[in-house]
This record gives sequence, structure tokens and C-alpha cells, in this order.
Amino acid sequence: MPKMKAAIFVEPGRIVLDEKPIPEIGPLDALLRITTTTICGTDIHILKGEYPVARGLTIGHEPVGIIEKLGSAVTGYREGQRVIAGAITPSGHSYACLCGCASQDGPGTRHGFKAAGGWKFGNTIDGAQADYVRVPDAMVNLSPVPDHLTDEQVLMCPDIMSTGFAGAESGGVRIGDTVVVFALGPIGLCAVAGAKLMGASTIIGVDTVPERLAVAKALGADHVVDFKQGDPVEQIMALTDGRGVDVSIEALGTQGTFESALRVLRPGGTLSSLGVYSSDLTIPLDAFSAGLGDNRIVTSLCPGGKERMRRLMSVVASGRADLTPLVTHRFKLEDIEDAYDLFSHQRDGVLKVAITP
Amino acid sequence: MPKMKAAIFVEPGRIVLDEKPIPEIGPLDALLRITTTTICGTDIHILKGEYPVARGLTIGHEPVGIIEKLGSAVTGYREGQRVIAGAITPSGHSYACLCGCASQDGPGTRHGFKAAGGWKFGNTIDGAQADYVRVPDAMVNLSPVPDHLTDEQVLMCPDIMSTGFAGAESGGVRIGDTVVVFALGPIGLCAVAGAKLMGASTIIGVDTVPERLAVAKALGADHVVDFKQGDPVEQIMALTDGRGVDVSIEALGTQGTFESALRVLRPGGTLSSLGVYSSDLTIPLDAFSAGLGDNRIVTSLCPGGKERMRRLMSVVASGRADLTPLVTHRFKLEDIEDAYDLFSHQRDGVLKVAITP
Amino acid sequence: MPKMKAAIFVEPGRIVLDEKPIPEIGPLDALLRITTTTICGTDIHILKGEYPVARGLTIGHEPVGIIEKLGSAVTGYREGQRVIAGAITPSGHSYACLCGCASQDGPGTRHGFKAAGGWKFGNTIDGAQADYVRVPDAMVNLSPVPDHLTDEQVLMCPDIMSTGFAGAESGGVRIGDTVVVFALGPIGLCAVAGAKLMGASTIIGVDTVPERLAVAKALGADHVVDFKQGDPVEQIMALTDGRGVDVSIEALGTQGTFESALRVLRPGGTLSSLGVYSSDLTIPLDAFSAGLGDNRIVTSLCPGGKERMRRLMSVVASGRADLTPLVTHRFKLEDIEDAYDLFSHQRDGVLKVAITP
Amino acid sequence: MPKMKAAIFVEPGRIVLDEKPIPEIGPLDALLRITTTTICGTDIHILKGEYPVARGLTIGHEPVGIIEKLGSAVTGYREGQRVIAGAITPSGHSYACLCGCASQDGPGTRHGFKAAGGWKFGNTIDGAQADYVRVPDAMVNLSPVPDHLTDEQVLMCPDIMSTGFAGAESGGVRIGDTVVVFALGPIGLCAVAGAKLMGASTIIGVDTVPERLAVAKALGADHVVDFKQGDPVEQIMALTDGRGVDVSIEALGTQGTFESALRVLRPGGTLSSLGVYSSDLTIPLDAFSAGLGDNRIVTSLCPGGKERMRRLMSVVASGRADLTPLVTHRFKLEDIEDAYDLFSHQRDGVLKVAITP
Repeated sequence: MPKMKAAIFVEPGRIVLDEKPIPEIGPLDALLRITTTTICGTDIHILKGEYPVARGLTIGHEPVGIIEKLGSAVTGYREGQRVIAGAITPSGHSYACLCGCASQDGPGTRHGFKAAGGWKFGNTIDGAQADYVRVPDAMVNLSPVPDHLTDEQVLMCPDIMSTGFAGAESGGVRIGDTVVVFALGPIGLCAVAGAKLMGASTIIGVDTVPERLAVAKALGADHVVDFKQGDPVEQIMALTDGRGVDVSIEALGTQGTFESALRVLRPGGTLSSLGVYSSDLTIPLDAFSAGLGDNRIVTSLCPGGKERMRRLMSVVASGRADLTPLVTHRFKLEDIEDAYDLFSHQRDGVLKVAITP
Repeated sequence: MPKMKAAIFVEPGRIVLDEKPIPEIGPLDALLRITTTTICGTDIHILKGEYPVARGLTIGHEPVGIIEKLGSAVTGYREGQRVIAGAITPSGHSYACLCGCASQDGPGTRHGFKAAGGWKFGNTIDGAQADYVRVPDAMVNLSPVPDHLTDEQVLMCPDIMSTGFAGAESGGVRIGDTVVVFALGPIGLCAVAGAKLMGASTIIGVDTVPERLAVAKALGADHVVDFKQGDPVEQIMALTDGRGVDVSIEALGTQGTFESALRVLRPGGTLSSLGVYSSDLTIPLDAFSAGLGDNRIVTSLCPGGKERMRRLMSVVASGRADLTPLVTHRFKLEDIEDAYDLFSHQRDGVLKVAITP
Repeated sequence: MPKMKAAIFVEPGRIVLDEKPIPEIGPLDALLRITTTTICGTDIHILKGEYPVARGLTIGHEPVGIIEKLGSAVTGYREGQRVIAGAITPSGHSYACLCGCASQDGPGTRHGFKAAGGWKFGNTIDGAQADYVRVPDAMVNLSPVPDHLTDEQVLMCPDIMSTGFAGAESGGVRIGDTVVVFALGPIGLCAVAGAKLMGASTIIGVDTVPERLAVAKALGADHVVDFKQGDPVEQIMALTDGRGVDVSIEALGTQGTFESALRVLRPGGTLSSLGVYSSDLTIPLDAFSAGLGDNRIVTSLCPGGKERMRRLMSVVASGRADLTPLVTHRFKLEDIEDAYDLFSHQRDGVLKVAITP
Repeated sequence: MPKMKAAIFVEPGRIVLDEKPIPEIGPLDALLRITTTTICGTDIHILKGEYPVARGLTIGHEPVGIIEKLGSAVTGYREGQRVIAGAITPSGHSYACLCGCASQDGPGTRHGFKAAGGWKFGNTIDGAQADYVRVPDAMVNLSPVPDHLTDEQVLMCPDIMSTGFAGAESGGVRIGDTVVVFALGPIGLCAVAGAKLMGASTIIGVDTVPERLAVAKALGADHVVDFKQGDPVEQIMALTDGRGVDVSIEALGTQGTFESALRVLRPGGTLSSLGVYSSDLTIPLDAFSAGLGDNRIVTSLCPGGKERMRRLMSVVASGRADLTPLVTHRFKLEDIEDAYDLFSHQRDGVLKVAITP
């Protein structure tokens, strides 16, 4: 059985590059030869043992690659095509998919859903930080890359662009809205770009790292708030003349950002939460207007599927949102352990790394 | 200055019937002579001092009455007309109103909103448990009662019917949904009726009082769950074959009901919260799927305004929802202190009382 | 190759029962043994040559049956299960499906859609008026029937219930709406039931056949208008006190019903069109308020897929809508030509026929 | 009674500048001293007698001005404030307003609506091409202009920006959509800007005037189609690789543009119509997919009210859409007849004129 290189979760604290067999595929699958992939903040949660996955699993959920082989029941693609697949790979045939919740995809024959069941790569099946990856339900998930776009241009589509934009979409951003984004990591920066794309007229970014505040401005933030320079809630209320914001996007996953995001909402406003939390949350009574504020709290998991990817690549192609500045570092797959070291320690202003086998 | 009787908040623990001047009206107002009104659970919060209002305020926000006098700038009505006004009386001209958040109505000239600012009767201005009430912004709020409907038939429209239905509406109930309603007081019972009206095919009511469970069944609940007979979350998951519910409606305002409402949601489901909370809430990490469940938490304040009232009265007239069984007791205004005593102690199977001056 | 009986389109004017091979299935398909099916108005269009299909095609798109055989890539079902499939059988993996337009399903690998491409049974592939039918994309389309529901109880789900309800859903019917349904054939009657399920407080049915007007009343129509007793537009405007309706549902497919449906709309109202038209339509300038009326015209093709079928069966199980009175006649498959004769001539008060192999 | 200058409709073919009394105001009104206004295409329809208004009416519905006087019941403003009011001036208290159709505003006490009843200025009451204008329902309609914005910067807000953006909004433009705009007059150009603001990744503009095609490109069109260079439907289908568009916006009001807008829609797509039509429309059977295409036709009248104006001015302030290039010519009020002459004959590349008293 031919072998390949893959970044494998060994135990909390250890993701290592090792050899594994090249995946075999079933009738609905495709085998991709990875040409570019990346590391996500979620992978760092896995590395640290904060998000549990099976030992021995290949990590990574952001594949750009070439179709190496197609399952026997797959039609409409050809070997050699360059494609991406979303981080979330819905089946297309589950009750969740047919109910409009494709990211919550579950087994196809029970009507029950499993939360986040659509996230499979590097979570419940082997992932993309490898020479090859098996893509399940290929006809739902393989999205051909237009020739004139480079791997790096579309590398953000599978996860952070889809997730960040979903923050604005689920928030229901409308023309003329005021939007705040809490935490300007890659997801938060994409949320800024998404809010701008949807017509927000005032976008406020909250972080403390100068490089991130600068990128946020380049992507559409009208104001940036450094939470170390004073209470961010007060700063935002001052910036909005006491009105508060229409939509606040949480892009970190902590009590502090969640609570602040709630406190700056105008009555009738929406908190759009993207963060992956690791502990219980508290909703302060006053921040929630005792339940009388006509507010909404909405959570979004990254939307996947080939149509979503097609749309995101069309945004890239249009030049409306240029996320390539987020790729700050590049590594070969054989050096992925160095990439993890850099990325997990947030050294050297890293935002995203490109990994090429 | 002519006098009238009014139920007045004196101090925590004391609402008494006393004399007050008949209200004077401004150019946009109307003066209503109350023919029927009622007591709301919120009034009990006020009585107990759990919700603060000014001492000396007339309580009550559910007026049925006759137009006694119209403000100088009011057109389109005539004295002697029988009307209702909603518990929430939006101005029609605030930024909140024009932004689609009429219940969050605030001062008309700042663009800022005040949470729940549309709730004025018995909160920020004198209320309806009196011989007369001043209705602000009369052209927005007075809704003529069709002749063939009795006062008692429309008595639920100003608050509990509007609020309860909003629970189903904000939850986005669709044909074929499974809906659970936590707590079957008047609001929860109306939420059951609202979920049925919107096409839910399975409605589960949760309470422990046998009379309430029985009324819930009459209004459309397919199943009732007595939370004293076992963990309601387990009972609901069993009833739904492990799937969970599409929409859960919280109609009490406690951590227990809120948390259970969250735990029974399917991924992608919506928690529609109607309760008035009196302490911070906790969102357990697992019940929230760590933020990855594509869930929504939505709060609704009672929608008001004459168009809402017109629609609700048309539902009453259609016979699609018969809420008159909720009026279990009747009192004269002069006996309203007895009515408060009965209602606040939930004696004698009381659901709603009708008060007639 | 084993043979079966099937109702076959021979030429305009002739659908005959003949022998055909039992279908073979591919890896994603299932073979159903039909236990009950029916004839649709669309089949009569095919019979008359008004809607073109290939000669030799088996007609019919409303299958209730038993799984006889499963394709090699199909999981989650077992042979012998009783199931239904929708009239529309989306693939689950097309761009149309992933874009929220499953009924417009097209080839899976182009991003283009084909109008009504999801309608395959008895249109582009062999249909259900036969001993057996091949169901494409079985994991998307097979929906198990609860044991306690009879074939006839679920026979309306695949098409007329799904289509009729979609009329109300696409119209955006809200609690308290006034809705009119033009033409009370099986689809229109289901639209009445759908409007009631969604909370319309006034439903007006328009037809001229007394039996249909009576069934409409039983399903929720508050008023019926016989268009032979006077201009239906005038009658409806009188019934609504000059206001017009919030939603008008067109369920026939003619200029007359379309135009009347437009004329009775209030400003801001929605015309929800279900009819299959056979000629150009005219929008009169005045009926369209010269384009200034904030109106919507929405067309809906029957939604399919197993989740839709599950929901519709849950409505049947709840007793909220009892459509069994629509089955007025029963035939064996061997007598289907008689059934076509009865149904196409609308004799004997026929609404729907049940056909059993 | 003091006099002022006003552009008055005398008879078809004649709008002349003449003297009129300065308007008197009622308790809910405000008197504005106009500082800048403009001429709209609709005014040309009036001039030509294609849209009937009363003889003697002052024309114009796009006011920028200074509050000269406030009605006795108006609070929250002060004389001397610089404000705009929308072309559409909803009352805030009609059933239409409270039903979410403010542009269809009608008398406040009947529940009936009148199509386009919210359009009052220069239609049913005296308009803004004058030294002074009376603004009805001032608290709903006066929107203060931020100091740092010039009159010309906000001159497009009352009508063409609000209308053009509504074309994109009612069309439901989503991130990654392909949108076409038919006819690139001022409204169509604003629709291009609106589609870009909402995240369309491909925008196609259709016209034949080179200057307009150039401005469309500057405002966000990725492609322009000159309908004189070949069938626009064919050109658009080629540009979209045969897929068609998600949203097509009609911004002229003719059969040709309407029909083309329908023909280029993908199944499931939306035709958003902004044009004011002057004759019946035909929907060709094939362009409508016989009613089976899950398509929508949506019409929008310009949204008004102070919150809408506030939002549009915030877009101007953000620099996200710069519409000042649309002001191609400037006139004094005393020369408005020359302005009408230029504008009605579309001479000299005119897009919009600024008129200053």
C-alpha cells in the first residue's frame, strides 16, 4: 500500500509529520492530491488537547488540490482537475442538509442531527495536512478552481472566508449598519471583509495587536478599538454616539468578547457568534435587557459545499475582497511542525501559513 | 379637576385602589374610558418590587375601552368608538419604529433606542387599571373593536396573545415543526396557540399544574410534559425520538427553563425567549455545542400598534384560536385588590382575571 | 428480463397500460414496488399533449411503495421498508440543490440550472404508475412512512400537499393574513389547508363547482366565491371591505385567474403562483400599480426530498390537515385507463383517485 | 401672505416657475427652506403628461433644506437645522406603515392602503422645487444632515439612492451573486452601487450611452453590455457561461427591459423591478418557465422616512458609494425651466442637476 506524509495528532501537545497509507476511496468519494493547505486556529485547539480528536488522526480541513481519483459513482468531474473542498463537507442527503442546516450534517437515515456533524476533515476523518486526502461525497464538495486564480488566492475559501463571511450573513448585516467585530484573528478579519461586502457603513474592529488592527483597516474597518487602551464597550458606545451597534460579531470564543459583544448591541440588534467556546458562558441580566430587548444571539458554523466555494471564489476573482495579505508565511509540508510552532505561538505577526506538499 | 379610581403602586408589596385626577391629554393623545382590563404577571413583578416603577404610578397595560376624548391633532377616530390599545404603544416616529423595532421605541429625535422603550402603560406612564387611561400616539395605537366581539374576547390581544404569538413568530415556526413551550402560564398557553396557528405538527407543553396542562391540550399541545415526573429534557428527547425540537419557547424567565429550552434544541434550532428574567443566565457549554450548532436565541417583547391589534382581533373573530377560557375570574375595579391577591397567589386555578370599572 | 405493467404515454390523447421491463438500478438508486399511486392534473396535460414528454415514457410522479432493492452505494435503508418519494426528486449534489433551489435541480457538475429539472418521474425518467419505479438519488428521496399511517393518508404528500402548502409558504402567509385561493382543484384545496396551517385568519376560496367549494370550507375557507355569480374581484374586494388580500394564490394556470389574483392584492401583497401556464401572461398596468405597489409575484414548484416528505407526513399524523376526503375514487392499476377517463373528464365529482397495483 | 418661487405643473408640456404663497403648516408638519433640490425622471413623466398630477401643483420630491418652522406638536427638532426628507413621506401611523409597507402609506384610520400613497411631494401635495416646502409628519421624515456632508453629497438620498439600493435589497442580493441592471440612468446607476454594496461578485450593466456605461463601471459594474451591439440576453448568457443571473434589476419601465430581465434569470432567481411602467406588460411563457421556475418578480417603491435617510447618509459619509459624479449640471431655481429643458432632452450627458434657490 503506497505511503504518504501526513500531520498526525499523537497526543495533546504533539502533532507530528509521519507516514500513512494513501487513503482508499469509496464509490462517492474522491482522492485529492494536496497542492496547498494551511493551519487553522482550531488545529491549535486540537494540538493543545482543548478539542478532542482520535489519536492518529490526520489534521487539517482546508484543502486545495488536484483530483487524483474518483469514486465509482462520482460523475461530472475528471482526474487532474484543480479543486477545493470546504472545511465542512456535507453529504447532501442527510435530513440536516435537506433542512437547510448542511453544516450540522449527520447520518443520512435517521432524522436526528449531530451538532457540527458536517465538520469531518481533521475531526472525524483524516484531514488535509498530508500529501493526499479523501473527500467524502465528492459531488457535493469538489469545487473547480478557475484557472486564473492561484492556490493561495483560494486557500482562505474553505474555512476562514466562509466562516468570517457567515458572521456577517447570519448577523443579517444590512446597508447602512454599524457592525463591530471582536477579535481580529483570521476569522475576525474575514468577518470585517464580510461586513463591508454586505454594506455596513461603519465597521469597528476590536483587538490589540497593531498588525491586526492595520489589516482590519485595509479590509474595511472604519475604526479600530484597542481593548488595552480602555474598556472596549465604552469606546464603542462613544464611537456610535451612544446608539450601540446593529450587529456585533464575536470571533474568539471567550466570555469577555461574548459579553462585550452583547453589551454594545442596540435594542433589536444581533450578536453573531463565530467563536469556538471552551467553557460555560454568562449572559448578564442588564446586557440582555432582562430578555426584553428584541435581541438575537446567532451562532454559525462554517458553511461548506461546492456552491458556497464557487461563490467565495467568485468574490476572490472579482477583487472585492483581497485576503491574500493574510498569508504571511509559507512552509513545505515536511516542515509543518515548524509551522505549527510558529502559528501556535503567534510569532512574527503570523496570520495564516501556506503549506505545500 | 375630576377624579377617578386607579390601581396605584405605593411601594413593594402594595398596589392599592385610590383616587387620581382623570388624565389630561396632549395633541397626539386620546383619553379612553376603560370598560375591561386585566392583571398581567408583570404587574405581579411590579407588586413584589422585582421590576421597579415610580411610586404613585397607575399599573396595568391591557386596555379595552371607549374613546372619551381625542387630542387636537388626532384624526380618523370618533369619540364613543370602542377600541383596544396594545400593551406596547410605539410612537410611530422614532428611529426604533422606523427601523422595524417598534417595541424598542425611544425618543423621536435621537437615533438611539432604549430597551423596551415602547412599553409605557403602567411602566413609564400611568396605566389601564383605572377608570380612564391616556393613550399616547393615538393614531398609531387605537384599534377599533369589531362590534360582534365582546370585551373579553379581545382582552387577551393587547399583551398575552401578542406576546405568546410572537414567541412562535420570532422562533420562525414552519409547517411540520416540532415545538416545545416551557411554562404554561397565560403567555405560554398563547405560545402554544401561536405555534399551532403557524403549522407546527408536534407541540409539547411543559408545566406541572394539571389545569394548565389541560388548557394547553385544548389549545393545541399534542403532548404535555410534567417536569415533576422526571427530567423534562429527557422526556422531550424521548418524545422526539432523540431528534430534539426545531423551536423551543421559553415563557417563564428562569435559568431552569432557559437551559432546558436550549438543551432540547436540535442543531440549527431556535430558542425563542419570552420570559422576563431577574438574574444572570448561564449558557452551558455542551448545551450550546461550544458555539458550533448553528443555533439562535431570540428574545421578543410584545408587539403593539393598531395593525397588530387588528390582526389579532381577526384571529379571534375567525375562531382559529379561542382564548376566552383563559378568563377564569371576574372582578369590579373597586375589588382589584382582591384580584391582585388571588392572581399573585395563583389560587383557585386562576389564569387571567377580567376587571371592569 | 422480468416484466411489469406500466401506464405509458403513446401519443397525444393516448396513455395505455402496457408491459415494460422492471427497471434496473444504479448505485445511488432504489427500486420501489408501488403499493399506491395516483393521477395528477399534470398527467392530463401530458395526455392531451399540452406538456411534451417522450413517447414510451411511464407516467406518474406520486409513489407510495415498498423498497424492493437498493443501489450498491445506498446506506441507511433496508429492503421491505414502506416509503414515499416526492414528485420532485432532487439529487442533493447539484448547484441548484446547494443554492436552495432543489426543485430546479440540474446536472451536478455544471453550475447552471435547468428550470424544473428536479421533476424527473414521469417527465424525464419513467414514473410511478407502474408495478415498480426506479427512484434516483435514493438517500435524498426515500422517506419512511410511519406504521400508523395508511397509504392513502400519505398519498397526497408527494405532490399536491407539498405544492399546495408551498403556495402558502412562498406567499409568506402570516398570522392574521387574508388569503384568497383561485381555483379549488386538488392543489388549490391543499393551498387552502396550507394557508390555514400558517395562520391566515380569513381564507377565501374561488371556484364554481359546489363540491369543491364545500371541501374548501371543510379545509379552512371562511368564504367561498363562485366566479359565475359575479366578478370574483368585486366579490373579494367587498368581502375584504375594500382592503384587498395579503396573499393571493393562483392554482390553475390561466390568464383569468392570474390577473384576478393580481387585482385583489393590497399594496405590498404577494401573488403566489402555483399554476402551470400554457400561454403568455399579461400584467395589466393598473393591476400592477404601474410597478409602484411593492408587490411580489412568486412561483413555486413542488418541493421534494425526504425531509419535506417527513414534515408533510408529520402534519398528516397530527391530524392538523386531513386530506383523505380528496381521494374520491379507487382503481386497480389494470384499470388505470378507466381512471384516466374519469379523471380527465372530471366526472362524478372526482378530486383524486387512488391506484393500486 | 408672503410669496415664494415654485416650479408648477400648468398642463402637459408645461412646468413653469411662478409665484405661490409660502405654505402654511399644521401641528405635525414642518416648513423647510430649500437649499438644494433636483429634478427626477418622474418629473419628466409629469411634464409630458404621462403621469397625471393636479394642475397648479408644485413639482419635486428631493428636498435638502433648513428647518424654518415646526408644527405645534412636533418635538425633537429645532429651527435652523439642516435636514433632508425622503421623496416618500410616510405618516408613521397608517396601517400600511405598521404593516411594513410604509411607502404604500394611506389614510390612517382605514385599514386599506392606496398604492404608492406614501409618495406625496410633487404628487398629491406641493413639492420641493420651490423656495419652501411643507413636510408632512415631520417627526417621521426630517433627517438631520451631518455637518461634514455637503448638500450635493446628500442630494441623491431622498430618491435615487433609496430607490436604486432598494432594487438590490428587494432582489435579495447575496454575497457572490451575479446581478444585472437594465438601464443605467440615475436609478440604474444607484442599483449598480447597491448591488456592489450588498456583495454581488459579478455586476453587469446594460445601456448604450457610453458615459453611462463608464459611470456604471466606476460604481461597480464588472461588465457592461451595449444592447445596440447585439441581443442583450445573449450577451448576458454568454457572460455568465449560460447560467443566467441570480438577480436582475429593471430600472426603466418598458416591456423590452422587463422581458430581458426575466429571460436572463436563472431558475430560482429574482427580477427586481424599479421602473414606472406606462403600459401593460407581457410575460412570455418560456421566459417564465411556464410558472415552474421558482422565480420571483418584486417591485419596489422608494423607501422613505428619517431612519432610511440616516442610513443612506451614513453610506455617503463612509465613502462606500460616491454618487456625487451623478451631479453633472447646476442651476439656480430661477433657471429651472432651462434645467427641465436640458434634463428632459438628456442633452450634454446630463445625469442629475442640482437646483439651488
